[in-house]
Amino acid sequence: MIMKHISFLWLILVSFQLCAQSLTASSPDRNVKLSVSFEKNMPAYNISYKGKPVILPSLLGFALNEPKMELREFELLKADSSWHDETWKPVWGEYSSIRDHHQELRLQLKEIKQGILLNIVFRVFNEGAAFRFEFPQQDKLNHFVIGEEHSQFRLTGNHKTFWIPGDYDTNEFTYYTTSLSEVDASGGKNVQEIHAKTFFDKNAVQTPLMMKTAEGLYINIHEAALSNYPAMNLVINKQDFTLNSHLVPDALGNKAYLIAPAKTPWRTIIVSDKATDIIAANRMILNLNEPSKLENTSWIKPQKMVGVWWELHVGKSSWDYYREKPTVPHGANTANVKRYIDFAAAHGIDGVLVEGWNTGWEDWFGKWKEDVFDFVTPYPDYDAKELSAYAASKGVKIIMHHETSASVTNYERWMDTAYRFMKQHNMNTVKTGYVGRIIPRGEHHDGQWMIRHYERVLNKTAGYGIMVDAHEPVRPTGMHRTWPNFLACEAARGNEFNAWSSGNPPEHETILPFTRLMGGPMDYTPGIFEIKMNVYDSSKKERVHTTLTKQLALYVTMYSPLQMAADLPENYEARMDAFQFIKDVAVDWDDTKVLQAEPGDYLMLARKAKGTSSWFLGAITDEEARSFRQSLSFLEPNTKYVAKIYRDAANAHWEKNPMAYQIDTFIVDNKTTLQLQLAAGGGTAISFTPASAEEIKKIKKYRK
Amino acid sequence: MIMKHISFLWLILVSFQLCAQSLTASSPDRNVKLSVSFEKNMPAYNISYKGKPVILPSLLGFALNEPKMELREFELLKADSSWHDETWKPVWGEYSSIRDHHQELRLQLKEIKQGILLNIVFRVFNEGAAFRFEFPQQDKLNHFVIGEEHSQFRLTGNHKTFWIPGDYDTNEFTYYTTSLSEVDASGGKNVQEIHAKTFFDKNAVQTPLMMKTAEGLYINIHEAALSNYPAMNLVINKQDFTLNSHLVPDALGNKAYLIAPAKTPWRTIIVSDKATDIIAANRMILNLNEPSKLENTSWIKPQKMVGVWWELHVGKSSWDYYREKPTVPHGANTANVKRYIDFAAAHGIDGVLVEGWNTGWEDWFGKWKEDVFDFVTPYPDYDAKELSAYAASKGVKIIMHHETSASVTNYERWMDTAYRFMKQHNMNTVKTGYVGRIIPRGEHHDGQWMIRHYERVLNKTAGYGIMVDAHEPVRPTGMHRTWPNFLACEAARGNEFNAWSSGNPPEHETILPFTRLMGGPMDYTPGIFEIKMNVYDSSKKERVHTTLTKQLALYVTMYSPLQMAADLPENYEARMDAFQFIKDVAVDWDDTKVLQAEPGDYLMLARKAKGTSSWFLGAITDEEARSFRQSLSFLEPNTKYVAKIYRDAANAHWEKNPMAYQIDTFIVDNKTTLQLQLAAGGGTAISFTPASAEEIKKIKKYRK
Repeated sequence: MIMKHISFLWLILVSFQLCAQSLTASSPDRNVKLSVSFEKNMPAYNISYKGKPVILPSLLGFALNEPKMELREFELLKADSSWHDETWKPVWGEYSSIRDHHQELRLQLKEIKQGILLNIVFRVFNEGAAFRFEFPQQDKLNHFVIGEEHSQFRLTGNHKTFWIPGDYDTNEFTYYTTSLSEVDASGGKNVQEIHAKTFFDKNAVQTPLMMKTAEGLYINIHEAALSNYPAMNLVINKQDFTLNSHLVPDALGNKAYLIAPAKTPWRTIIVSDKATDIIAANRMILNLNEPSKLENTSWIKPQKMVGVWWELHVGKSSWDYYREKPTVPHGANTANVKRYIDFAAAHGIDGVLVEGWNTGWEDWFGKWKEDVFDFVTPYPDYDAKELSAYAASKGVKIIMHHETSASVTNYERWMDTAYRFMKQHNMNTVKTGYVGRIIPRGEHHDGQWMIRHYERVLNKTAGYGIMVDAHEPVRPTGMHRTWPNFLACEAARGNEFNAWSSGNPPEHETILPFTRLMGGPMDYTPGIFEIKMNVYDSSKKERVHTTLTKQLALYVTMYSPLQMAADLPENYEARMDAFQFIKDVAVDWDDTKVLQAEPGDYLMLARKAKGTSSWFLGAITDEEARSFRQSLSFLEPNTKYVAKIYRDAANAHWEKNPMAYQIDTFIVDNKTTLQLQLAAGGGTAISFTPASAEEIKKIKKYRK
Repeated sequence: MIMKHISFLWLILVSFQLCAQSLTASSPDRNVKLSVSFEKNMPAYNISYKGKPVILPSLLGFALNEPKMELREFELLKADSSWHDETWKPVWGEYSSIRDHHQELRLQLKEIKQGILLNIVFRVFNEGAAFRFEFPQQDKLNHFVIGEEHSQFRLTGNHKTFWIPGDYDTNEFTYYTTSLSEVDASGGKNVQEIHAKTFFDKNAVQTPLMMKTAEGLYINIHEAALSNYPAMNLVINKQDFTLNSHLVPDALGNKAYLIAPAKTPWRTIIVSDKATDIIAANRMILNLNEPSKLENTSWIKPQKMVGVWWELHVGKSSWDYYREKPTVPHGANTANVKRYIDFAAAHGIDGVLVEGWNTGWEDWFGKWKEDVFDFVTPYPDYDAKELSAYAASKGVKIIMHHETSASVTNYERWMDTAYRFMKQHNMNTVKTGYVGRIIPRGEHHDGQWMIRHYERVLNKTAGYGIMVDAHEPVRPTGMHRTWPNFLACEAARGNEFNAWSSGNPPEHETILPFTRLMGGPMDYTPGIFEIKMNVYDSSKKERVHTTLTKQLALYVTMYSPLQMAADLPENYEARMDAFQFIKDVAVDWDDTKVLQAEPGDYLMLARKAKGTSSWFLGAITDEEARSFRQSLSFLEPNTKYVAKIYRDAANAHWEKNPMAYQIDTFIVDNKTTLQLQLAAGGGTAISFTPASAEEIKKIKKYRK
């Protein structure tokens, strides 16, 4: 009896200690602080930055569908905190090495009624904070079904927000800039331009969600390491500006099928008073992902490509061999592909993407058809064997295209056969595509089943030594750290929309790096020189909404280890001086400096090419003309560089005069301050290469 | 203007002619007559037998979900009728050749409002009638989604019915015998014994639906050639005894995704005033299926098997190597499998089925787990290579088991790898299994997606030279004609239920041939000699609900080209005299005679073994003891046979004394009339082999 009392007292004591102990963690620089409290047994976390609240106390919990239960109220069993500091080297990326320095706070919880064990793990970095849930191995929970994750993000006010509508199937929207209270995801400009979409709540938005407070604080909410779990949308409570997680459901409305032990993705809150910090903080998302699963990564190569692609989008040729308008040729014919191979070989481009080479395109779009492509049968005018030999003889790789038409059951049946076909034809990069409504019918692009599929593709392609560029997949969450063969993906509204829709407004590319690109590289397909589509068909009104030099700057601002020179060879041949930048620009980097940035307005980055002393700078603006002063202090000291500046001509304007550009060459050093003038919708691209003695003599020094 | 008038008049004339012409077809023997009329533009068919109505005028039509429209009212464009008479030889079966003799009536219709073209094709045989819909190639309909097929079967009264509940996922019910008005599919005896089931309507029943009218007419409704379409349930309107088709939906409630030209399965109405005719009429269903898709069928062999199987069901051993009760050994260990191989080799059994040989069983049941089996990784105690060599040395085939756990996406990913593994290990028969809720989640065992899967398995296995025995698939519809590697399937409540559930009542096997077996062979797994499960565990109450000799008779009454000797080797070794019948009985036949039958009561068949002069007879009864007189006029004239009669002992009784049997041997000929006495729940099995001169001398002649 006495023993019992003592145990009870001890329990009270421990509970008291746990409650009393500060459940807190902070960033190495102490700017970001996170603490956890319990409100009526419900765990709530809050985050501050430099002493100011960023996330007010926000509840965390789950609803399970099988077994049916709510996991809201918990007893705290144990709390641990620890510091971690390590530096790792990505296989490719924006930096040669990345430091992962954070404090971790790990709470072991037990649900009060059913005794289910749940851990919540918090990590706090200089860039922000993150948390994930872990269901440990336990007797009371083995196989289970998530009904909903209840992760709250209680914001401090009606922030300005750069958002796209919440959706289960697409992210190919233009961005809206409104206050949180003005979000309306139900209507949507340009929404009719997207084929497969699933609206579910007018207050729902997608992540990465970029916000700016009235006080000038920048906040970005996203997730990291999305694996075996659906993507998270956020639903805004406009009364109190709380964002509530909403996971993408499956055909039956269930959210995730898990087996304990199981982990959710990390929910990330990046915060800074400088917009430039936000873009640099995509490293926090990488740090939250698992290290590479691949031991041998020597076969993985950042690369540039051209392709039988833009000519399809502008209507100059067709994907479909059995086309309805036979006046337009089938694009992927042997002779035409050879032309691209020749062009790539002549200009040091690594690969040639070929779309429309295989049967199926004659009956693929919007049909929800299961047996659509087989990925190995070329159209009659495409000689796969001959082209593979021809490309090899020119030192160029053909890049495979696997449009699945979102018939994923069909693709999974063919995957091995298709990858073997690639290896037999000397290919090692595949562009996948998921246009349309998903099969299995009722599943969604961003649901757990598809998340597992995307990872299955990465795993299987890695086994074959194949790199992947996924189109129409879920938005990325840093998984390219874990699967370095995952070079890039689309997962946003790419440049292609400019060819056949209302297109992307001039601000589009100034927002993407704060949103979509937080999760990983984008195959945006920049480099369009022929800005107006009426050169292909005088009746066309479609056009690119930038100047030509902004297209060049995108190779720096829009990070990807797989960059396309998207325009037609003949359009490049007509402007070889400007094309020189695309030839020169690197696709892998030792270092990145985010020099100037404001989401929706402008962006300037400089990057050091991997293993060289060359730097590249890209600066872009929205529909406003802007001038910038920019110090080149990032350059190596005591070194003279040749700066080749590709800039908008004085009279350039994205709408009125988009293709007017000027190329200037100067000698600069790390003490130089450049004055850059960007046209409305314009940009500047600069290459910096160490100057030879002769160049120093011949080329004039930059002077403002 | 005059031309127009003339065209209009001509149209009226043609329409009048079409309406006036009798839209009828009849059977070669004129007993079955079908005619079609239009009620307010709605096509309605009716069927009579020997002048009496069987199906009253019944409407036919569709609802489409994409494009959204009703197809109910039609204009008749054209009607053709034609006679067909051909005889074909099945690769294996109950008959060496089958005559397909019917009149076809083909109506070409045009939907009134939207102009959609639809054909309805009727065929009338001596055995009954059938119809199917065809959506021809047309401009107005390409890809489309069936919302529902509206096929009616208006019956003439409140018939006696042998039925199981309508369901989207299972057919493993015991049968109910009630009038149509008494059908209640909502409750259901023994329903809790079935793991994955999806009830949808208390008035719904499955096909093959067997009925008997008050006037003694036998009617069977089913379908033939179920391909790329969901299975059909029937919903009873109890006011007017109309059966309405209800197709199995997909996860979204859609029924079928089709591309014109497309055909539905045939809806079959078999009718006779003799119950024996119904069973023989399963040939009509075969005639409605496409001929074999396989050119080379020499590798396809009817066969017998034993297996590491019943010992798992009775709890003597476990599927799972990492079992919770280690007191029970893991069944599929190398030594035990060798024991079965030895037994098979000693007794001329072709194959040994091995279940539980591969990893996954430790976490498979009822979890709805996607990545469950890989079909190539044996448990540590199973030496696949050694056993394959050992089996080959004994002239025995190991039969592969692919339990998918209904995770079909997973199986489809592994299929090629799994079949290659089989060929590497000298196997050419696979038993597949689909226990559990289907993945893709929301799909059903009997929905279009799974129908396509089953056919995909048949196609792919055929490519590897592999025969298939499918468990938990959709009920068969004669597709084994088209895919002769489709030896058998379960698709009903098999003998296994007797091992661990309330089991199958004595009438069960007298109903199955009138219902489930109309569509094709069943792997019922007869041959259980140890009737009561308490020999394995004294606490067990489970038991087989037949006598031992009825188990023997099932090898004749329950047709399958793949027959299992399901009991344990030691149980056969204890009764080698009775086991002799299982050794002797054929699994492929030149001819079949349905001698006596009444659904739910009794059944007697005789079959002539393929390519020999031997005959085998099986007679079974329900819980009633019965005596039969049976002429042997089917035997070859002027030939003496040794008849070996395996019969219930005089005091045998399925419940009180099930294992008492007697074996008698007589000389008989085609003028002999046998008197057979079957115990309650009993049966008689007889082998007839041409007698040698010595046998004629030694063995006494049968005399009643």
